[in-house]
Amino acid sequence: MISQTAEYALRIVVWLASQGGEARTTQQIAKATKIPAGYLSKVLQNLGRSRIVIGQRGIGGGFTLSIPPERLSPLDIINAVDPIKRITRCPLGLKTHATGLCPLHLRLDEAMGLIEKGLGETKISDLLRGQSGGTPFCEDGPSKKRGSAGNRKASSDHK
Amino acid sequence: MISQTAEYALRIVVWLASQGGEARTTQQIAKATKIPAGYLSKVLQNLGRSRIVIGQRGIGGGFTLSIPPERLSPLDIINAVDPIKRITRCPLGLKTHATGLCPLHLRLDEAMGLIEKGLGETKISDLLRGQSGGTPFCEDGPSKKRGSAGNRKASSDHK
Repeated sequence: MISQTAEYALRIVVWLASQGGEARTTQQIAKATKIPAGYLSKVLQNLGRSRIVIGQRGIGGGFTLSIPPERLSPLDIINAVDPIKRITRCPLGLKTHATGLCPLHLRLDEAMGLIEKGLGETKISDLLRGQSGGTPFCEDGPSKKRGSAGNRKASSDHK
Repeated sequence: MISQTAEYALRIVVWLASQGGEARTTQQIAKATKIPAGYLSKVLQNLGRSRIVIGQRGIGGGFTLSIPPERLSPLDIINAVDPIKRITRCPLGLKTHATGLCPLHLRLDEAMGLIEKGLGETKISDLLRGQSGGTPFCEDGPSKKRGSAGNRKASSDHK
């Protein structure tokens, strides 16, 4: 129900949020989030167009969040790359349903509303540490050390 | 978030449920639900495999529900054709997340759980009449009259 593109965008944003404002290269992002390089560029472009991430070229350049994680919700990210489609008009185009959805589409739209509510009430900053202390994508080691992601020895299951 | 296949399956089941147990041909179903013929056959096959609809050949044959609409939920239909994928394991395959999802994937899975709850608590029979009295797919006229769907004059917006 959450598309691959939305899942990838969320991984990128959560990981960048965990980097304390430091710029990260596409290689570092790809390694930490395990997103294929070609797909990653596309999702980064989408996030850039929505002004959620900003990319800077040159030495020390890379991508950072342009909105603080305390002000971003998972819903914001999903809607930036693959928006949740609410049902506002009869999908069959029936004239008799022009002024009100039938019970089926009303119920489906309510389900979409539940997702929006569930993912809109959380902030990205809430996702940086779990109840058990686990952090996002922590297998690649201490993520605050600049450049560490690109230099560490790959773990055995890393492709 | 609800796939096209799931949307079509729901239309088919709700419309068949509104037909009072009468068998309906693929032509009648296609006309009422506005599902393209090729796609309709595929979805009907899926619903048949899940024993939600049953098809009978010959004169007077066609498709009927094999489970009463009072015992079917929208979730049953969706799970029969394009199941809601709960997140039970780390999508990145991280060893450190093998025993517990990270906060991001936990939250996404909770959103999936909200949809399951929302669409599992309703029954198809609840969707046969709306609060305003509107019925599903009512533009094609009185649907209880056998064979009427195939013989009626097409409405102006029907293709």
